[in-house]
Amino acid sequence: MTQTGFKHPYVPEDIELEGFVPNLLPYEQILSVFFGGSALVVLLMVMLTGRYKLSLVERLWAGWWMCTGIIHLVIEGTVVLDSKFYQDTTGNILKEIWKEYTKADSRYATRDAFIVQMEGVTAFVWGPLCFVIVLGILYRTSWRFTAMALVSLGQLYGDVLYYLTCIHEGLAHTRTEPLYFWAYFIGANAIWIVVPLTCIAYCASNINAAVAAAAGGKPSKRKSS
Amino acid sequence: MTQTGFKHPYVPEDIELEGFVPNLLPYEQILSVFFGGSALVVLLMVMLTGRYKLSLVERLWAGWWMCTGIIHLVIEGTVVLDSKFYQDTTGNILKEIWKEYTKADSRYATRDAFIVQMEGVTAFVWGPLCFVIVLGILYRTSWRFTAMALVSLGQLYGDVLYYLTCIHEGLAHTRTEPLYFWAYFIGANAIWIVVPLTCIAYCASNINAAVAAAAGGKPSKRKSS
Repeated sequence: MTQTGFKHPYVPEDIELEGFVPNLLPYEQILSVFFGGSALVVLLMVMLTGRYKLSLVERLWAGWWMCTGIIHLVIEGTVVLDSKFYQDTTGNILKEIWKEYTKADSRYATRDAFIVQMEGVTAFVWGPLCFVIVLGILYRTSWRFTAMALVSLGQLYGDVLYYLTCIHEGLAHTRTEPLYFWAYFIGANAIWIVVPLTCIAYCASNINAAVAAAAGGKPSKRKSS
Repeated sequence: MTQTGFKHPYVPEDIELEGFVPNLLPYEQILSVFFGGSALVVLLMVMLTGRYKLSLVERLWAGWWMCTGIIHLVIEGTVVLDSKFYQDTTGNILKEIWKEYTKADSRYATRDAFIVQMEGVTAFVWGPLCFVIVLGILYRTSWRFTAMALVSLGQLYGDVLYYLTCIHEGLAHTRTEPLYFWAYFIGANAIWIVVPLTCIAYCASNINAAVAAAAGGKPSKRKSS
């Protein structure tokens, strides 16, 4: 661990991060890779699932689950496993993403217990389950709605606790510039509020209809004529 | 806030809790009220639901959801709203429970961000939803399995993060005596691992069967003969 002499841009200013190395890529490039890559994954999945007997809505859900699974496992997995991501000198995009995002939440660098453990579950439990869900959608398995609803609730609850714990500590870890506060902290995380809520509504509607049909179908054997 | 001169029994020893007042009730009495009261609620619910057309399993689930709902809203609600529970001088059983449990986890007294926010969601979101679920079970609504599965996942995930964050911080907030570590910290919390997992399995089995039946019934209109 070398003393680099660089001053980190995170708040609160008095946190000590030995060997910090500033971002090597401009933030426009980091955001382009993250959002461009995500959009590309969704688009590819929608295109490649044409040969399955799926509605457009189902193909879009396959795209979402592939995309969010990669983000969980690869991107969030990186910050869980590499506690010294901010020392990277190679310009590795995964480390660059976290050096940049940490401006919106320094708890990633200070290894806050909730952040590390919530991200650990997200990366290594929800992450792999997202890929299982993609298979469930493609093959229209009977458990796909159950799995989607449960993992969506996990994402939603983790994200709600993420916001609440940050607010509880007076937003002391979040820089106040609009890019960091509104775009990164509020905006990027809001995706995992809005989409999981939508997915839970979609699954609940399908499940509840099936349960109602199963209950209605069994006791009252409808006579013909 | 008076300086009482009492030394608190929590760890780490150097946490400062102004105005701490020791437990006024013996721990056997506190545990009897908590576990006896919980068992009584389950038993009462099983007995009182006799007039509904429900299986014993369904009546037991109604008992569980009523019991866990009361624990969330009343007991966990208390510790969320009263940050100075350890100053209580009246012997209020709700405060006594938390003075005692804090020996297994001092983060309740130090107002750890994750603890307070996770308990807030548990008390005031999962809590009321538990009572909605009881109604859903009694009237065999089509959404009862969805609601039970989602709230169970919420309880499970909150509890998993509870254990993981405590371990992450080296169990520094937990006294090592078997009563505090094994019975309170491991044992009592394990209930909200085991029962939610069981409930998720129960719901998934019902949901998946209904979805399979609904899918099987629609496209292949079976010809008679």
